[in-house]
Amino acid sequence: MTQEKSQKAKNLTHLLSPEAKSRQNSPLKDAFKYYKLPGMTFLGGGLPLSDYFPFNKITAEIPTPGFTKGIGAPLTDDIKSTVEVYKKADQNEPNQIELARSLQYGFTEGQPEVIAFLKEHTETIHGVPYQDWDLIASVGNTESWDSTLRTFCSRGSSILVEEYSFSSALETANGQGINTVPVTMDEFGIIPSALETLMSRWTGNKPKLLYTICTGQNPTGSSLSAERRKQIYDIACKYDFIIVEDEPYYFLQMETYTKDKSQREGKQVHGHDEFVKALVPSFISLDTEGRVIRLDSFSKVIAPGLRFGWIVGQAALLERYVRLHEVSIQCPSGLTQTLTNALLQKWGQSGYLDWLIGLRAEYTHKRDVAIDALEKYFPSEVCTWVPPVAGMFFTVSIDVSKHPKFHELGEDPIKIESLIYEEGIKQGTLMIPGSWFKSEGQSTPPQKNLPQNPSQRTHIFFRGTYAAVPLDQLVIGLEKFGKALRVQFELE
Amino acid sequence: MTQEKSQKAKNLTHLLSPEAKSRQNSPLKDAFKYYKLPGMTFLGGGLPLSDYFPFNKITAEIPTPGFTKGIGAPLTDDIKSTVEVYKKADQNEPNQIELARSLQYGFTEGQPEVIAFLKEHTETIHGVPYQDWDLIASVGNTESWDSTLRTFCSRGSSILVEEYSFSSALETANGQGINTVPVTMDEFGIIPSALETLMSRWTGNKPKLLYTICTGQNPTGSSLSAERRKQIYDIACKYDFIIVEDEPYYFLQMETYTKDKSQREGKQVHGHDEFVKALVPSFISLDTEGRVIRLDSFSKVIAPGLRFGWIVGQAALLERYVRLHEVSIQCPSGLTQTLTNALLQKWGQSGYLDWLIGLRAEYTHKRDVAIDALEKYFPSEVCTWVPPVAGMFFTVSIDVSKHPKFHELGEDPIKIESLIYEEGIKQGTLMIPGSWFKSEGQSTPPQKNLPQNPSQRTHIFFRGTYAAVPLDQLVIGLEKFGKALRVQFELE
Repeated sequence: MTQEKSQKAKNLTHLLSPEAKSRQNSPLKDAFKYYKLPGMTFLGGGLPLSDYFPFNKITAEIPTPGFTKGIGAPLTDDIKSTVEVYKKADQNEPNQIELARSLQYGFTEGQPEVIAFLKEHTETIHGVPYQDWDLIASVGNTESWDSTLRTFCSRGSSILVEEYSFSSALETANGQGINTVPVTMDEFGIIPSALETLMSRWTGNKPKLLYTICTGQNPTGSSLSAERRKQIYDIACKYDFIIVEDEPYYFLQMETYTKDKSQREGKQVHGHDEFVKALVPSFISLDTEGRVIRLDSFSKVIAPGLRFGWIVGQAALLERYVRLHEVSIQCPSGLTQTLTNALLQKWGQSGYLDWLIGLRAEYTHKRDVAIDALEKYFPSEVCTWVPPVAGMFFTVSIDVSKHPKFHELGEDPIKIESLIYEEGIKQGTLMIPGSWFKSEGQSTPPQKNLPQNPSQRTHIFFRGTYAAVPLDQLVIGLEKFGKALRVQFELE
Repeated sequence: MTQEKSQKAKNLTHLLSPEAKSRQNSPLKDAFKYYKLPGMTFLGGGLPLSDYFPFNKITAEIPTPGFTKGIGAPLTDDIKSTVEVYKKADQNEPNQIELARSLQYGFTEGQPEVIAFLKEHTETIHGVPYQDWDLIASVGNTESWDSTLRTFCSRGSSILVEEYSFSSALETANGQGINTVPVTMDEFGIIPSALETLMSRWTGNKPKLLYTICTGQNPTGSSLSAERRKQIYDIACKYDFIIVEDEPYYFLQMETYTKDKSQREGKQVHGHDEFVKALVPSFISLDTEGRVIRLDSFSKVIAPGLRFGWIVGQAALLERYVRLHEVSIQCPSGLTQTLTNALLQKWGQSGYLDWLIGLRAEYTHKRDVAIDALEKYFPSEVCTWVPPVAGMFFTVSIDVSKHPKFHELGEDPIKIESLIYEEGIKQGTLMIPGSWFKSEGQSTPPQKNLPQNPSQRTHIFFRGTYAAVPLDQLVIGLEKFGKALRVQFELE
């Protein structure tokens, strides 16, 4: 935060939706300037007295930084810390958020202490290149995305999405009557030249934004390289659209996969600088114009049920989100804000980085176990995979043209996909068919005139995860899916 | 819940918005039927392991039921209880929500234990008359209202609102391009005959819903009588619209005001049955057709910062809210759900009623102090008031035709209102001008052909609250406002 920044964000308010543009400030807000003015008796606001909040003191047991036994180790006494939060500030340690404040109305942007922590963290990790950026709280990326669409789009708007994308995110757009135009991907994410071609041929209303899960993508597990990010950012500037980077998996970046187990041990990052440098640059770290909206969240790094995310972007655009949040979610739960803040303040910036480094080690190991199992059990005659470098997901690409019923079933890859899905369930294991994530929108002119990934006529994929199951189960599950593939393809 | 109900809700899906109708179920949901099936290895979902959730055990100090010293009494050891919640179910008491579950994804409808508690409570208080009602969680009534509008309305829709209404609620509608048509009120709320006249003359697309804060209304402090509720419900059935009752203040119902202080002591309700019977019947308690959506919240009875509300209505309509919540808020914070549930389970239904009875006593006393101060300090020559029977607000009606500058300022009540507002601030006290809450929408044909409240040409009102300030400050503030009125009206 000490760095002086001369550059200011570009004015992009022309990209706001009619809904976002029309939001009024409440006249009541104006009256609140008199609240707590010396000598003023303020009878204006309907706030309950905090005396009636029936939570007086809350204590939580948390792991002690260092996390030398791993972040998932049972909390034995030697690695256990305690945080205490109180209703009144005078009982709390510095930088705690008293319950009398967090359980009251107010602070749509988020409580100042935890927002300041997140801003400092964001500057450390991303070093946003312009001056007037801001950071506001949300109740998680699902809500941040819903609010983003309401802030920039209206019924009939088009947006750009990855060819395969998180089905809930697509459904958010579909419900709002927004056209989700797919951008061609390969195993490393969006292909910049395909995006450029799509935009250069576009007619009619330009898309308002590109939605990308650029690190550990859901469902493909792909991660955009620094080079592709820069190319895509330049295209966004050229064609004047917003990039929305939905980044729940950003800190699930891992070491690159290596088959030789003896080489794995030494690869894990140790120091904080080494850790930060090993991260792929985010879009917002490249954002000289202020046209990136970054959706960040504690869901994958602390816990999803906190319902606590945050949005980073230029202040003038985020102000419109705050107006929307005032009349929708208001802010994350006060218990969540007070307790998450207590945890973060206890850990400090340094302890939080230790936690994230611990997370990196855990996911690297899980990913290694998954890819080892693919190597062992999946038939290489019909399958390929790219070991993911981030996220919770891996995908297995399958050449359906080698399936014995391919011709009989009219060379329809989806029919073979169904057979494999059903066979997997029969064998007692479930992975998700890639076609379930296909985005369905239409560009103008229709994208069929555009270059398509030719392998789609002969290749399908399945999405698996190494995040959610114990490692022994993961291996058993993949062994069973490998068997399902062998049965279907009549191998051995 | 033991009562057998034969009546089922009417099919009202024709009132849903295009957005609500178009929402799809995710195909991924279908796959989740295999989750936790014996023998199945489920590699489908991207859930983080609960081992990585850094909250192990949380302890909270809460007041012990009985609340004999009042609900706002400092928590001394003799009236203090403790609740403990753990990550794993086997360490918890029965009916607790383990943190491993509440901090995970899932349960958009709300965690089963706390929803069951709220359903039992709802049946006790409201006795919903039909069979297929349901109750789902929200993050508070502000969000419930936003979701309600998105579920029933679209840009250009009209809705009915109280002539003076909560400005944030009107702004929620305005932002969505929804026309808010005012229904004439008097000091006791919506006038049923005015609503009937408005509807009988309506041309064009009928309003989708009536939005009413029917108990302790914000801003007027009025509460609809049981008789008016029944009449309004019958009009809703006749003209086929939904009634949305926004009821944060429902449990801030009080004893009726009596000037004679000696008579006050004995009036407070004591037993649970007496308490429940003393409550005004809600719209949902009259709802034989399933056309009431009730918005309920802990904000005024536990704490606003919990961000925990709930919606009651017929199951077929609430299912559409769940689809919306899946792609927006997901659910209230897991910490909020686990800790609020722990509090409620510790108190039990009976202890929670004790708490609400305690709240009634507190607000009755605050209201009495406020009205006593009005009696003492406000000039009866120009002011009148109706002591509220519910909520946080009182209003003072002022006859501006008696203001010395009334004719000079073109007989414009709003100009006199501004003078009084400014004079209040000059005297060091702030109440909110009633005109700030005026709803501005237009009916078709324009409502100017309809009967209007003639007193609006000569009367204004100011809204004050007795909720948010200590009682000594309340009296001082009202004394100062009384002085401001005397100065403005050149009295004494």
